[in-house]
Amino acid sequence: MAIRVPENPIITPEMVTPSAPNMEVIGAFNPGATYYNGEVILLLRVAERPLMEDPNKVGVPMLDVESDSRRLKILEFPVQSPHIDLTDPRAVTFEGRTYLSSISYLRIARSKDGANFQVDPEPALFPATPYEEYGIEDCRITVIEGVFYISYTAVSRYGICVGLASTHDFKTYKRHGLILHHENKNAVLFPRRINGRYTLMHRTGASALNGPNMWLAYSPDLLHWGDHQFFMEPRTHAWDARRIGAGAPPIETPEGWLMVYHGVNPKDGYCAGVALLDIENPHHVISRSENALLMPEEDYEVSGFFERVIFPTGLVPIDTNGSLMLYYGVADRSVAVAKTSIRELIACARDEVMLLVV
Amino acid sequence: MAIRVPENPIITPEMVTPSAPNMEVIGAFNPGATYYNGEVILLLRVAERPLMEDPNKVGVPMLDVESDSRRLKILEFPVQSPHIDLTDPRAVTFEGRTYLSSISYLRIARSKDGANFQVDPEPALFPATPYEEYGIEDCRITVIEGVFYISYTAVSRYGICVGLASTHDFKTYKRHGLILHHENKNAVLFPRRINGRYTLMHRTGASALNGPNMWLAYSPDLLHWGDHQFFMEPRTHAWDARRIGAGAPPIETPEGWLMVYHGVNPKDGYCAGVALLDIENPHHVISRSENALLMPEEDYEVSGFFERVIFPTGLVPIDTNGSLMLYYGVADRSVAVAKTSIRELIACARDEVMLLVV
Repeated sequence: MAIRVPENPIITPEMVTPSAPNMEVIGAFNPGATYYNGEVILLLRVAERPLMEDPNKVGVPMLDVESDSRRLKILEFPVQSPHIDLTDPRAVTFEGRTYLSSISYLRIARSKDGANFQVDPEPALFPATPYEEYGIEDCRITVIEGVFYISYTAVSRYGICVGLASTHDFKTYKRHGLILHHENKNAVLFPRRINGRYTLMHRTGASALNGPNMWLAYSPDLLHWGDHQFFMEPRTHAWDARRIGAGAPPIETPEGWLMVYHGVNPKDGYCAGVALLDIENPHHVISRSENALLMPEEDYEVSGFFERVIFPTGLVPIDTNGSLMLYYGVADRSVAVAKTSIRELIACARDEVMLLVV
Repeated sequence: MAIRVPENPIITPEMVTPSAPNMEVIGAFNPGATYYNGEVILLLRVAERPLMEDPNKVGVPMLDVESDSRRLKILEFPVQSPHIDLTDPRAVTFEGRTYLSSISYLRIARSKDGANFQVDPEPALFPATPYEEYGIEDCRITVIEGVFYISYTAVSRYGICVGLASTHDFKTYKRHGLILHHENKNAVLFPRRINGRYTLMHRTGASALNGPNMWLAYSPDLLHWGDHQFFMEPRTHAWDARRIGAGAPPIETPEGWLMVYHGVNPKDGYCAGVALLDIENPHHVISRSENALLMPEEDYEVSGFFERVIFPTGLVPIDTNGSLMLYYGVADRSVAVAKTSIRELIACARDEVMLLVV
């Protein structure tokens, strides 16, 4: 069970000032989440698109990789062209080449109570490499040995890859390059070594032989990954029938690694559900919720930039009794949060009905 | 320049006994190549398909992953079904799921002179893990610190991934798991560390944002890979206009890393060409042949299981003057070899015309 807070949506694009005067913020969503220095920190994915003076043109923002100043440039395409495809609101395809209709970067939002947030005036992690030309998306924050590791989706003409950055203070960030090649996203680190190896879950792309599936990989140093092992795929007729991917970084419990993940089915859209993985061998899935934990129901979850999306990305403890705040992106537009607990999430993973003790 | 030997094709499926009485060998091609113990060793990709008694059925061979005995099983599908797609001879698609029409494994062929080969009676590396369920394909052999490392394509219901194995003697082999996740193939190791790091070139799959491209990755231990960097893509209007991928393991020369790779264009099919990469920073491409080194011209290159394919996979030195045997698969059916040299390959990479000194 997870109870939405009355403040939802807790962050909307209107709370974010654009990174430049010629841009507008169309999304502030899918946040990495952690606790640091007395505050809940969200690393929002902020999506911006250019303000266009000419209504007959669509603008495509991207990092100007030829420039040393790391500025954005705007490509302009004629809306009426027979060579343009604007069917998917997230993309612009012109003369056979596909771009993104907005550029994303990471920006901090801070809160003392976990529900009322203030957004920093400046970006935290802005595109800066050729692999981030089209943006930085959907990060997750995992604390490992006292360091905040930020795994994120790096999008560019070279494809959709996984980048890694780290910080000690959410003021300066160190980039560690691409840890997974194209096509991969939704990579989430476990918070400690398992049998001596750092562990990552990741989600590969689709091809002729299979759809996008969830895998584990292992590393001696967090930078180099190998021993890739498939571990979860969509289940026909369930809430995660069409597509799945990691959600929040897993939490260690006596019952196993507790993992909130996302699943998609044609009827409900993107939902959140729960799985329990074996502590010593997370490749072994102990149980997986038959029903979703959260389905798009509220207005802010149903309507937005992309309809019917609950996209869980972070779990933050709020007391020592196992109470948790589950942060999730809604409708590719805003951020919402629901209160839950380790006990309730384990019950969900096992499909147990919990008696409410008031 | 590369001169085909008169013995071509040097290996054909007819030279290979099937691995079981109910199978037929339809391909012996795309070999890893090296020199060991006084012999040229080829690790052939042998492709087999089941002999079917009923002409109305097509058989799909695969590893029986549920069985402990590592045997093959044959799925049978009705040829006349409205739910079957046999358009691509390499695949069988039934009720929306795609399988391979044959299963591949690795088998040794040996030669004293590099042109006349004997094929071992038994497979060398046969599918044995769930990730090899549909076969082991297109290996490359790189000698690193005295060990023969075999990078190969592992195909299964989980996708097209890169596996790594090693051997000291071509009698026993050790598997090192999947070093790259789905979708990736044509991964080729450099023969030594570069600036302290082992180096790999690999070829990602296609997606909405880009086609299959060549990348480099780096490793401290050959097992875990990171810092992925894009370095080569197809060139419009050249012999490698449509598709590219690594060929033989690179050779260190005073002019740079010499790399024979494959490219595809609609007119000629799969060709071999040459590139020179900077020794200290192979990410920097010094030059790339404007013309192909070898194009499908001979009957055995033009006709076979898949038409018009020259697929270079191994270079073996045959003297101390830089003479080389270039081994390549032809038409997804057989193996051919051409004599060349380091000097000639460098000239090809630079598009220099060489005067023949007779």
